[in-house]
Amino acid sequence: MGRRIIITGVPGVGKTTVIEGALKKLEEEGIAYRSINFGSFMFDVASREGKVKDRDQMRKLDRGIQKELQRMAGKAIAAIEGNVIIDTHCSIRTPQGFLPGLPEWVITELEPDMLILVETDEDQILQRRLKDPTRIRDMEGGKSIGEHQQFNRMIAGAIATQTGCTVKFVKNQDFLLEQAVLDMAESLR
Amino acid sequence: MGRRIIITGVPGVGKTTVIEGALKKLEEEGIAYRSINFGSFMFDVASREGKVKDRDQMRKLDRGIQKELQRMAGKAIAAIEGNVIIDTHCSIRTPQGFLPGLPEWVITELEPDMLILVETDEDQILQRRLKDPTRIRDMEGGKSIGEHQQFNRMIAGAIATQTGCTVKFVKNQDFLLEQAVLDMAESLR
Amino acid sequence: MGRRIIITGVPGVGKTTVIEGALKKLEEEGIAYRSINFGSFMFDVASREGKVKDRDQMRKLDRGIQKELQRMAGKAIAAIEGNVIIDTHCSIRTPQGFLPGLPEWVITELEPDMLILVETDEDQILQRRLKDPTRIRDMEGGKSIGEHQQFNRMIAGAIATQTGCTVKFVKNQDFLLEQAVLDMAESLR
Repeated sequence: MGRRIIITGVPGVGKTTVIEGALKKLEEEGIAYRSINFGSFMFDVASREGKVKDRDQMRKLDRGIQKELQRMAGKAIAAIEGNVIIDTHCSIRTPQGFLPGLPEWVITELEPDMLILVETDEDQILQRRLKDPTRIRDMEGGKSIGEHQQFNRMIAGAIATQTGCTVKFVKNQDFLLEQAVLDMAESLR
Repeated sequence: MGRRIIITGVPGVGKTTVIEGALKKLEEEGIAYRSINFGSFMFDVASREGKVKDRDQMRKLDRGIQKELQRMAGKAIAAIEGNVIIDTHCSIRTPQGFLPGLPEWVITELEPDMLILVETDEDQILQRRLKDPTRIRDMEGGKSIGEHQQFNRMIAGAIATQTGCTVKFVKNQDFLLEQAVLDMAESLR
Repeated sequence: MGRRIIITGVPGVGKTTVIEGALKKLEEEGIAYRSINFGSFMFDVASREGKVKDRDQMRKLDRGIQKELQRMAGKAIAAIEGNVIIDTHCSIRTPQGFLPGLPEWVITELEPDMLILVETDEDQILQRRLKDPTRIRDMEGGKSIGEHQQFNRMIAGAIATQTGCTVKFVKNQDFLLEQAVLDMAESLR
């Protein structure tokens, strides 16, 4: 059986860039990971089960059905052979507050080996978002970004306690992307 | 089925004032919430079950019985029709340390939609307590209040992971009560 | 039945010194505690079950077997008559990140009454480690120590929610050991 690593980070922290850099490095060493986006994977499960036709319908599902689909997705990922990265969020900022992306019924099925939080100073994240025209709509201040990162750490403590997985913080600081990539690669090695 | 919203906050943060303001606003819009104090509700359950005669006896109950009563209270609240606010504490400061007000066996029965933490700067809370003669007895410093609020956030992370509920922070800052009321009303709408 | 108190703290915080001081004080009052190191206790369980011959083998055990041994150790400790201190870690810093020392399947068996975190300023911990030649190998900076203490608090929030135990912070500050001992003794009394 391979390893299951959950990788999270608030929007704009540069999670995808770090993952791609690390996977390229590992590929050169002959270490392979399948990268799964949890949201997309769950949508595939839901479509296959005939519960939804498009992604918009996902949010409108009955709570019980949503829970069941999440559980099924977690179980299906845990059954995959080889090393797997699960690309998702500890929590998502919504008008109703922070929505946990990895509730108990998902993580106990997933049984991850490690949870990685990609983080950096909230000011740097704010600057990165300001440069990204696709993020203009739901702009928030640095303090609010810091609060989101702090909340994700609390979620991480709960996930670690529930599953026994290790929790690793990978910093993706300005001008130090290479360091972040090396850290991430080391964690996945 | 209605929504179940847990509202918490350390003593002196002004939780009740914010709730009352928000409920008044919502009433004008025809949105009704039943407000339940978790402690009182549990005492009612305990009396009905013949376990206690007065509230003092509640603290002296055997741990197993207490747990069972908490679970029953959670279940009974979850069965209530319509929107419900559960007014309680993430944790209570006791001589034995912070006692969690919403342990796993309560929240998994309750299945809340949202957990709201009413917060503000610890210095403001200290000032409010100093003006309240009923709170003189167990006075604590600002640092200690800050520690309590921080611990409640950790509890919130655990509750979100366990139940999948969203977590919302409503600030009740000096001179900005109206803003807090609007935020709270928006969360309950 | 006695009380079960988990006591934790990062390396160098002086946990053992505080425990020993407090137990001495309590002994004079006729209050007895059995002090158990969770790691050693688990090794004894593993040896008795014929799973390992030496402590090095403990780390290399299959995940499922490790989990089962942890659960058995938790259960066995819970069955001990009289007051028990469980000396362990909320989390351990490893190359794979913070490893939780008290996962869900341990704490739900243990059913602790209280979780004590011995803490102090990270700078003081750093100074103490610098003076201790046995700790030279895995030296880390003050910021990193602070991060570890913060993560342990998050773990504490999750443990409290899962078990209903209280969480107490005992400060072991420079020049104030006697205060820490009194605080600890008061918690155990």
